[in-house]
Amino acid sequence: MAITFLKGHGTENDFVLLPDPDGGLDLTVARVRALCDRARGLGADGVLRIVRAKALADAPAGIDGDVWFMDYRNADGSIAETCGNGVRVFARYLHDTGLVDGPEFPVGSRAGLRPVVVHPDGTVTIDMGPVRRLGNSVAVVDGATFAGIGIDVGNPHLACVLDSVDLDSLDLTVQPEFDTTLFPNGVNVEFVAPVGPDEIHLRVHERGVGETRSCGTGTVAATAAALAAQGETTGSCTVHIPGGTVHVTISETSSTLTGPAVFVARGELDQAWWDAQR
Amino acid sequence: MAITFLKGHGTENDFVLLPDPDGGLDLTVARVRALCDRARGLGADGVLRIVRAKALADAPAGIDGDVWFMDYRNADGSIAETCGNGVRVFARYLHDTGLVDGPEFPVGSRAGLRPVVVHPDGTVTIDMGPVRRLGNSVAVVDGATFAGIGIDVGNPHLACVLDSVDLDSLDLTVQPEFDTTLFPNGVNVEFVAPVGPDEIHLRVHERGVGETRSCGTGTVAATAAALAAQGETTGSCTVHIPGGTVHVTISETSSTLTGPAVFVARGELDQAWWDAQR
Repeated sequence: MAITFLKGHGTENDFVLLPDPDGGLDLTVARVRALCDRARGLGADGVLRIVRAKALADAPAGIDGDVWFMDYRNADGSIAETCGNGVRVFARYLHDTGLVDGPEFPVGSRAGLRPVVVHPDGTVTIDMGPVRRLGNSVAVVDGATFAGIGIDVGNPHLACVLDSVDLDSLDLTVQPEFDTTLFPNGVNVEFVAPVGPDEIHLRVHERGVGETRSCGTGTVAATAAALAAQGETTGSCTVHIPGGTVHVTISETSSTLTGPAVFVARGELDQAWWDAQR
Repeated sequence: MAITFLKGHGTENDFVLLPDPDGGLDLTVARVRALCDRARGLGADGVLRIVRAKALADAPAGIDGDVWFMDYRNADGSIAETCGNGVRVFARYLHDTGLVDGPEFPVGSRAGLRPVVVHPDGTVTIDMGPVRRLGNSVAVVDGATFAGIGIDVGNPHLACVLDSVDLDSLDLTVQPEFDTTLFPNGVNVEFVAPVGPDEIHLRVHERGVGETRSCGTGTVAATAAALAAQGETTGSCTVHIPGGTVHVTISETSSTLTGPAVFVARGELDQAWWDAQR
């Protein structure tokens, strides 16, 4: 039986999608690595297996078995909880192929259910849950200290709003230094340059990865920091990241991320190639 | 009409193949760049358009119109003459899909016709043409001087056989220095570590690119240099490059390169994505 795939991206965070409703695919670590390898595979930041929750051995408790579950794997083959950019591409696939009824539905992930809305233009809004402020802190880049705010959006962030420093001038090739007491498990660091009251430019250093084209939770954290710099705790923002543009809203109890979900191609994996990866 | 594609690689030099027998595809520079972009496209080192020579406006004179022509584009959208790793993948496609009769046939390219043989195991032998020795020269890496031989395999090479230096220790992140009188248009530089009388390890710095996983003509130049170090001008060699292993033979009048051609996937490009790139 042919193994079908799709290749797509959300703000240039790119994925191989593998539709596998009944969970029959033997998706080993070696195969994930080979799929994501940019020379000998298809190339991607991660693999999104599309599977019914009931067909997944390690689905979290409390998720209905008929929910479509995003089984997300990092390029190194490890399992990840979720990914805001991946959820958009995943949700658009479910919607465009008629696997769900209507534009509003929940997507299952190891971080729990994510309610989404697929819009007529193909963009997708994700409910990102509540934003929790952890207090003030600093990041140090190349000897320069930047004031920031610790923010939890399911994962930890340190978002620094720049005043006089040029965003493009920062060297983010190395992990910015941070307070390891406040962030014992590491932290994603955002640098935010406001271009208007509700519009920012953003660069992100993701822990364990380096600078990335896009980070879904990072755009929410950056928006929270930009709002805080204006004395606000709620509001909305247009966020320009290297890989594109998204829109974030933050309320007292929740947050949303709206952004593009792009498909590039679809087809079948070569069976001999698949069999050679184990 | 759906635009079909294949993704494949030859010793990890990877390509998007676009079957376009009648030359109807509007393959702009922007579309080549988008296809090769590893975040927002399929990702590849280059695009191989599969077209009959008669359907190509700029096919070189003397190529029969019914010959299958490899219209090779670099990732930046520029036109390239040919590519040994690409020819293998291209030839295997023609053979496996029955577009040619039998395993031996010529492939058209801007560098002329390349006779190929597709073997039952999917490997492909390419006639690489004559090897011309340009004389002794040196390459300088990080202040250290390495004796080498200038070799022309349709393009210029400087192949240095190492004696005591560890191949893995060389820093090839920058272009090695060379004699610009002998190589006025630049040169591909090979560093060769023999592991037996007919077996070598090879690293290549390609002019204008940097170190690569594989370089077809470079494996031929490296073999010529390894043979010369043994006082030979003809012979054969197993060549281990970072992206895999190939076999090279050199005779007085010609040379051949035999190596793998791997398909990863095939399918259709997303029409909206294609239309958005112009």
